[in-house]
Amino acid sequence: MVPYMELDFSKLNGLITTVVQDQTTGRVLMVGFMNEEAFRKTVETGSVTFFSRSRNKLWLKGETSGHRLVVKEISTDCDRDALLIKVEALGPGVCHEGYQSCFFRRLENGQWQESEPRAYDPAAVYGSNS
Amino acid sequence: MVPYMELDFSKLNGLITTVVQDQTTGRVLMVGFMNEEAFRKTVETGSVTFFSRSRNKLWLKGETSGHRLVVKEISTDCDRDALLIKVEALGPGVCHEGYQSCFFRRLENGQWQESEPRAYDPAAVYGSNS
Repeated sequence: MVPYMELDFSKLNGLITTVVQDQTTGRVLMVGFMNEEAFRKTVETGSVTFFSRSRNKLWLKGETSGHRLVVKEISTDCDRDALLIKVEALGPGVCHEGYQSCFFRRLENGQWQESEPRAYDPAAVYGSNS
Repeated sequence: MVPYMELDFSKLNGLITTVVQDQTTGRVLMVGFMNEEAFRKTVETGSVTFFSRSRNKLWLKGETSGHRLVVKEISTDCDRDALLIKVEALGPGVCHEGYQSCFFRRLENGQWQESEPRAYDPAAVYGSNS
């Protein structure tokens, strides 16, 4: 059977790398993984849905926080083994640690440094025990 | 032993996902993978070096084409299992198929459509048999 949309899910055991980019600012917000079902849901619903490797199930981004990623444009690469999704990101940040982008640590003089302040309080969104 | 720069190479069998973004335009150019050695080389040399899964060895991007990726900024994400590298991309395009970005196919009405013309002739750069 030809995989959904002729993507190559074979290189990462059924998963495909997905880069999420803010359509307006161009900022790369996060990287996640999709299996075929997650990609199909993303296309059908217009909300980015990943496959969570740690929880081993589909993961509608924003399900808990409300910080959903609204699909604006989907591209794939030459090998068809990666996706680039431009989104409108609802809410102040996509990172569960409270930052606008998951890429909030920059390499400076051989050390990772936080390069921006938090955009929201994760305890208020996810609960203090999460 | 703590992995180099405290990155988490464990989730993809020793590899870490790496997103390459044009520093000037913000365009996402490609996605590749690095092992510890590739990342160390990238930091030390200032030229993006991947680990090629298909050739099972280090891959200095641009070694054949001259289209090297000059490192301008490196970030990692909350889980420390992905990298975002902003670069100056030498040459007309990073994609071995002749496009500026590997993400040259966009989803339009349920089909992948080439969304831009080629930026160079890959046969002239890589040879017609490659």
